[in-house]
Amino acid sequence: MNRTLRDLAERLGCHLFGDPNVCVSTVSSFQSATKESLVFVEDPEHLGAALASAAAAVIAKEFPSGQYSLGKCSKPILISAQPRLTFARAARLLCEPAGERVIHSTAIVHASAIIGKNVAIGAQAVVGERVRIGDETTVGAGAVIDDDAAIGAHCRIDANVTIYEGTRMGDRVVVQAGAVLGSEGFGYVRDAATGRYEQSPQIGRLIIEDDVEIGANATIDRGALDETRIKRGAKIDNLVHIGHNCQIGENVVIAAQTGLSGSVTIEDNVIMGGQVGIGDHARVESGAMLGGQCGILPKKVLRGSGVVFWGTPAKPVKEYLKELAFLSRSAKKNR
Amino acid sequence: MNRTLRDLAERLGCHLFGDPNVCVSTVSSFQSATKESLVFVEDPEHLGAALASAAAAVIAKEFPSGQYSLGKCSKPILISAQPRLTFARAARLLCEPAGERVIHSTAIVHASAIIGKNVAIGAQAVVGERVRIGDETTVGAGAVIDDDAAIGAHCRIDANVTIYEGTRMGDRVVVQAGAVLGSEGFGYVRDAATGRYEQSPQIGRLIIEDDVEIGANATIDRGALDETRIKRGAKIDNLVHIGHNCQIGENVVIAAQTGLSGSVTIEDNVIMGGQVGIGDHARVESGAMLGGQCGILPKKVLRGSGVVFWGTPAKPVKEYLKELAFLSRSAKKNR
Amino acid sequence: MNRTLRDLAERLGCHLFGDPNVCVSTVSSFQSATKESLVFVEDPEHLGAALASAAAAVIAKEFPSGQYSLGKCSKPILISAQPRLTFARAARLLCEPAGERVIHSTAIVHASAIIGKNVAIGAQAVVGERVRIGDETTVGAGAVIDDDAAIGAHCRIDANVTIYEGTRMGDRVVVQAGAVLGSEGFGYVRDAATGRYEQSPQIGRLIIEDDVEIGANATIDRGALDETRIKRGAKIDNLVHIGHNCQIGENVVIAAQTGLSGSVTIEDNVIMGGQVGIGDHARVESGAMLGGQCGILPKKVLRGSGVVFWGTPAKPVKEYLKELAFLSRSAKKNR
Repeated sequence: MNRTLRDLAERLGCHLFGDPNVCVSTVSSFQSATKESLVFVEDPEHLGAALASAAAAVIAKEFPSGQYSLGKCSKPILISAQPRLTFARAARLLCEPAGERVIHSTAIVHASAIIGKNVAIGAQAVVGERVRIGDETTVGAGAVIDDDAAIGAHCRIDANVTIYEGTRMGDRVVVQAGAVLGSEGFGYVRDAATGRYEQSPQIGRLIIEDDVEIGANATIDRGALDETRIKRGAKIDNLVHIGHNCQIGENVVIAAQTGLSGSVTIEDNVIMGGQVGIGDHARVESGAMLGGQCGILPKKVLRGSGVVFWGTPAKPVKEYLKELAFLSRSAKKNR
Repeated sequence: MNRTLRDLAERLGCHLFGDPNVCVSTVSSFQSATKESLVFVEDPEHLGAALASAAAAVIAKEFPSGQYSLGKCSKPILISAQPRLTFARAARLLCEPAGERVIHSTAIVHASAIIGKNVAIGAQAVVGERVRIGDETTVGAGAVIDDDAAIGAHCRIDANVTIYEGTRMGDRVVVQAGAVLGSEGFGYVRDAATGRYEQSPQIGRLIIEDDVEIGANATIDRGALDETRIKRGAKIDNLVHIGHNCQIGENVVIAAQTGLSGSVTIEDNVIMGGQVGIGDHARVESGAMLGGQCGILPKKVLRGSGVVFWGTPAKPVKEYLKELAFLSRSAKKNR
Repeated sequence: MNRTLRDLAERLGCHLFGDPNVCVSTVSSFQSATKESLVFVEDPEHLGAALASAAAAVIAKEFPSGQYSLGKCSKPILISAQPRLTFARAARLLCEPAGERVIHSTAIVHASAIIGKNVAIGAQAVVGERVRIGDETTVGAGAVIDDDAAIGAHCRIDANVTIYEGTRMGDRVVVQAGAVLGSEGFGYVRDAATGRYEQSPQIGRLIIEDDVEIGANATIDRGALDETRIKRGAKIDNLVHIGHNCQIGENVVIAAQTGLSGSVTIEDNVIMGGQVGIGDHARVESGAMLGGQCGILPKKVLRGSGVVFWGTPAKPVKEYLKELAFLSRSAKKNR
């Protein structure tokens, strides 16, 4: 979509330095920029490269005075205190998918489902009994939304996603292809007489709040008796596993292939690297950061906003690095 | 489904203390219990909380004499030597899905498939040539069951599952959404002349015995030339990977995101934590327990019923904890 | 498919010792061989077992002179310098799927898609606008290929795969069931004012070159602004995750459940074990080998063709094994 810099500056709340009638249609890296591109620089030292690129215009910070004087500056500049954020927002304004929004004739939507305005449902998708889907939501081809699930407005459920019955989802939730939401958790009771396992009841719910985003082929189990909850704004990467009864806080970030056993609590604003493993009933308190591949034992509580933890079992990274250094040194000495 | 306590006590083989005409319709936690709920207590000290909940009745052990005397006990008690197990079985009696069992008009079932009695097949599912599906089995929406696969009775194949051709499955097998069964294993031969890889034949079978349960988005490869086998009662969590030619014993439990390379043998009753990694041709002998994230080298044999192994490479946990303690102590001293 | 040994010897470029009119129809292990099977031996000491099996013929190296003399050798031998490779190629000649190649009547193929000759598309598959599919390619049941994707010739896209819009794929690419290609990467900008995350643009492409093979339920993200690229001949196992902007070299091998963060470069001929984790912007140089579960920090460069790395953070395996040995020894002494 084409927009003038005047229009963008207004929508993004930026001061514009340069020609307001210049048009851009996309965002780009310096390398792939064309004369319709908008690029951004976070660090003043990259401004020269941005100006040397083919881009039409640049998003940048207010750099030291005089830098944007007409003589020096070959392209229009959108001035932002957070250029990367402004760039992200510009992308959303420019790259909105157009396409018509229809319910494909091969989608199976149960007569009892309540479908909002301007909802798009892809070919071969299946929407079960009493499902609710909010306005402007998109359901991809082949996705299956089982009975009694409720999906908010402006959500995007991609192709081949499975949403189990009764799952509830807020607004602006994004679920990428192949993810499975609301599956039964891994809970068994062993019969002492026979040694065989029988499933514990897995009849709770999965609640996903507004603005959560979930990556491709991730799996999130429903609660066993009560609920699993992913709170507002949490971002979950591909192939992450979240077990039954977990509570994921607001604005938590979980990188790819991390796994949480049952009944884990992750408080708000925690940041987790990839391939982290967390034992059941552990709790990670607000603002902690977990390095990639670290492991947390069952029932453990990790505390410390801004503290980075690493290793298995996870400890503050400074401590862990000392251990690694000691080991490396000693092994060399003791050959 | 509503049942009287009399009916439940009879089906579950429990002694009932209290009014046999009380009805329950579901199982619950104490917190979410309503006046139609059945709850359970494993530990006598929680009995007070159970009795204080809104539940209609409680499953509990035979506690020291007199405790259930009319004067003390405000709710009916179902007495069981294994309350958690009885609770699980009660849940199955109460929470049986009702719904009609039909083959959806959009399911594609090949004319040569042999479909048992009372089979349900969801919308958009695909059932290939010569597939056999046993009585009372449910196939979810969008599931794909390829040619010559055989599925037993009372199985549940959830939405968007893929079952490759020729896979054979016993009775009462549960496969959650997105799992892939019978895919080709990861075996290549490098051409010494060109340095390029060519696939080794992956033409074997996958056999899944009775009562196996498989989690969402798990993957299990077929045998290369012969078979991969998952024996009776094994329970496999979400996102687990099992390579070609593996043999998984009876009542083995494998937690989420664990991965087994090719030709691994896991003997009966082994319990594996999450994110465990096992190299090809390794063998874990009967009754061993593997802690989360531990790693086992190719060809390694782990022995010891009841022994817990941890770390990479995995060793008995006592030994490993001593190493961790030594390291922690030494690093502190040697600053 | 039945073939005479004469035919096979000619197609495989092997010298044949024995009756050229013998027919075989499949490849087998010694154990499962029948009188229509071809087996192979890599190591001369297994020749006796091969000859003792039920197989019709054997692929073997040119062993010391006289060994294949009529008196000693009970079965025809196909002589190859690389018996395992020849066996793999024989399997492809013998086990070609026959079946008719049709576009199933329930597949939804957009009128603007350009479909090559002899393409097979399974039931309930969805092929979007302007998609191109090359000759002889197979698309499985329930697969979803979104708008503007381009797939080469002789590819195999299995059931329930999702290919996001604009993904481009060369020839002879294999994608197993449930894999997701071209999903949006995990990139967010945090708004300093609100503490909430907003998605960075994920509008780049995914390019997959010729002869790449991708396992079940693997996920590969598109580039953020530019491209993610999987180069010719790379082999990727089940449940692997590859983040946005990664560059995977030619003939790279990545075992199951390994995860690559964004902007990782893996140069040609690298071999990676399972459950390896690599931080963003790291680079693994040509020919390195990474042991299972090892971890590489962001921005790290690993160098050394033929060097094996292990541990987290990964170091040359010899060095790492010394550390493990020191630790084990010391912990025993210091009880």
